Amino acid sequence: MKLNSYIDHTLLKPTATKNEIIKLCNEAITYDFFAVCVNGCYVALANELLSDSSVKVCSVIGFPLGAMATEAKVFEAKNAIAQGADEIDMVINLGALKNKHYDFVFDDINQVKKAIGDHTLKVILEISELSYDEISKASSICVDAKADFVKTSTGFSSGGASIEAINIMKKAINGKAKMKASGGIRDYDTAKTYIDLGVDRLGVSSGIAIMNGTKSNSNY
Amino acid sequence: MKLNSYIDHTLLKPTATKNEIIKLCNEAITYDFFAVCVNGCYVALANELLSDSSVKVCSVIGFPLGAMATEAKVFEAKNAIAQGADEIDMVINLGALKNKHYDFVFDDINQVKKAIGDHTLKVILEISELSYDEISKASSICVDAKADFVKTSTGFSSGGASIEAINIMKKAINGKAKMKASGGIRDYDTAKTYIDLGVDRLGVSSGIAIMNGTKSNSNY
Amino acid sequence: MKLNSYIDHTLLKPTATKNEIIKLCNEAITYDFFAVCVNGCYVALANELLSDSSVKVCSVIGFPLGAMATEAKVFEAKNAIAQGADEIDMVINLGALKNKHYDFVFDDINQVKKAIGDHTLKVILEISELSYDEISKASSICVDAKADFVKTSTGFSSGGASIEAINIMKKAINGKAKMKASGGIRDYDTAKTYIDLGVDRLGVSSGIAIMNGTKSNSNY
Amino acid sequence: MKLNSYIDHTLLKPTATKNEIIKLCNEAITYDFFAVCVNGCYVALANELLSDSSVKVCSVIGFPLGAMATEAKVFEAKNAIAQGADEIDMVINLGALKNKHYDFVFDDINQVKKAIGDHTLKVILEISELSYDEISKASSICVDAKADFVKTSTGFSSGGASIEAINIMKKAINGKAKMKASGGIRDYDTAKTYIDLGVDRLGVSSGIAIMNGTKSNSNY
Repeated sequence: MKLNSYIDHTLLKPTATKNEIIKLCNEAITYDFFAVCVNGCYVALANELLSDSSVKVCSVIGFPLGAMATEAKVFEAKNAIAQGADEIDMVINLGALKNKHYDFVFDDINQVKKAIGDHTLKVILEISELSYDEISKASSICVDAKADFVKTSTGFSSGGASIEAINIMKKAINGKAKMKASGGIRDYDTAKTYIDLGVDRLGVSSGIAIMNGTKSNSNY
Repeated sequence: MKLNSYIDHTLLKPTATKNEIIKLCNEAITYDFFAVCVNGCYVALANELLSDSSVKVCSVIGFPLGAMATEAKVFEAKNAIAQGADEIDMVINLGALKNKHYDFVFDDINQVKKAIGDHTLKVILEISELSYDEISKASSICVDAKADFVKTSTGFSSGGASIEAINIMKKAINGKAKMKASGGIRDYDTAKTYIDLGVDRLGVSSGIAIMNGTKSNSNY
Repeated sequence: MKLNSYIDHTLLKPTATKNEIIKLCNEAITYDFFAVCVNGCYVALANELLSDSSVKVCSVIGFPLGAMATEAKVFEAKNAIAQGADEIDMVINLGALKNKHYDFVFDDINQVKKAIGDHTLKVILEISELSYDEISKASSICVDAKADFVKTSTGFSSGGASIEAINIMKKAINGKAKMKASGGIRDYDTAKTYIDLGVDRLGVSSGIAIMNGTKSNSNY
Repeated sequence: MKLNSYIDHTLLKPTATKNEIIKLCNEAITYDFFAVCVNGCYVALANELLSDSSVKVCSVIGFPLGAMATEAKVFEAKNAIAQGADEIDMVINLGALKNKHYDFVFDDINQVKKAIGDHTLKVILEISELSYDEISKASSICVDAKADFVKTSTGFSSGGASIEAINIMKKAINGKAKMKASGGIRDYDTAKTYIDLGVDRLGVSSGIAIMNGTKSNSNY
């Protein structure tokens, strides 16, 4: 298995500096990762650094709380695409989901998808905050709203990906969207377990450790 | 001392529901707090609920990481004002600050200030991530960029307000901006300590506990 | 698979009350779990409550830091056995392990094992604090010191069990001891994954949720 | 004010190595701190290193959960004294306190005090887990049980010392015991604030930063 091609090489801590982003991009080229995943303020830089490579640029939107106004999510997504992002990882509106305001949750996602057209949209559920029923319902809404991926976690909440959540997501999605597992995946065996479960992409900040079989203590 | 008039009554957890925001607003009216502080998706609701009161609406921008593109911060701030926000609490770009890209940090703040005009702008430093020198330098940049307030913390990082940080901020600001202490302030004596040090506003999710002399375990 | 027979039903939070321990023991009887795992102050109570059942009593020693003097670990273990504990989960001395004082690490474990005789000794490595090499070395020392089980985590550190760590432990142990996975195991699929990997016991505070296919947010 | 004489220079993380303890002791001599505070496995080493100095050795007992059996706390305390500890910082039994089993809480403390005679006993309340009423009641029990100090926090829970808690403790203690503030005290101004409130001792891992006016990110 070519594990590298599943990896979004990720650096989202707010104190990340320009040099750390340069290092991230260079590593992504060296290991031929699928993408780098960065905060909005570094999209233009990543795009410039990766322009001659096949590594894509992924940016987060409404991150990590997902509680931004829909209009702001739409603008942020369009702005990221304009600055060179290939893919968008947005956070679902958790309060509306908890409140069963499913029309709002759908619309929040669907408007972002419409704004970015053919670009890939991943929707982060933040599964550590959700019941099994909420994970299932949220996954279905993502499919209805034309999300390309359903993603487990931001890496900034109390927990990351879990096997159970992936299984629930898979059942709810029923082949109509892809899955990205993220949060707490720090080693090769765990990465492979998720891929064997059917995950299409891995969001990891420990990509180098995973590829080299060493160990990381990162929480993402 | 009328402690209530110092308080931004705050609810920023991403899972907050509509009913929790309604409760927050009603409490703010009952206790005559200065403002409520909510995520962007609840600005319109809070504005509607508080329209007949003197309680102001404060919204957070680029929250809590501060790593959004400047254009997205500007749009999010304008959008919040359009939906009824009176005050804007934005997070500083921590990576640029760490990198000593002070022009970027200044511009990130100044563009938001220009976009919101006379509305109050508070800039969150996230002091738990900064050295004393960085707190001092960031405070000076905030003043130069026409911020109305320098604020300590988001409540989503590893630590909140500290006495030392307030003293450093006060010295750097030198009377040219106000100060907001936030993060970990959960009781009357602590609130009073910060006010005695010269703080002009308190961001607390424990406003009721503080006013009633009881205890909260909230982290904000 | 009879998942229940793999479970140490666990409640170790320091604020746990007598009624919570009574509930824990009753649940263990209802679900026929292998054991309950409690802090030392509740061993006598659990022993009394479970005397007519097949559910065993497990107590933690030097918990959760493992930095107690060896003499104190030995006494605490003997005292727990005297009060009715069937099994002992002690924490390895992490500082000595980091320092490569392997004789000390061995002796710390071996003295506890000698003190409790035929009673089962599990040694907690706290894998979130260790490199892969340290996990491997610690597992070997546990085998040499006659531990019956090597266990991953306390549930009080930054991370719990991981698939990679189990695989490393398995290789180092080479069939000469059993394995207990603990920390962050909150659902049936994850529990089953660990058992399929060869784990002999699961330390979980979400035993009921695991058996019923619902969800827990507990960190243990 | 000679701030150094108020400080218990503290290193309690479980991975602390021998060299880190040697450094801690040397720093304590250089700055003439009141004591070092270490885990039980390092008492003998600290005692040896500090034998020619006036710096005292303080060890923690039942740390940090306080849920050990009373017999084990008593043994651990006596063992620490035998190995050279001058002072004992034990953790109160939080479950019994929550359960209003005040006789048990009293006895747990009083037996340790009897076991160590004239040596100083500090009792850690872990105020982040307690209501104001519980802080007050626990402080009174400490006084009745002949504790020499009431101490706020372990540094391993969700929060550290607070001004309000100190004020509540002071009122309940009414001059019949001393107070130690610990947890989250990382700078000179905060340290001085606590001393001005009447605190007699500070447990800090940032002693050097406090003395030099620089900044630490330690949680203790």
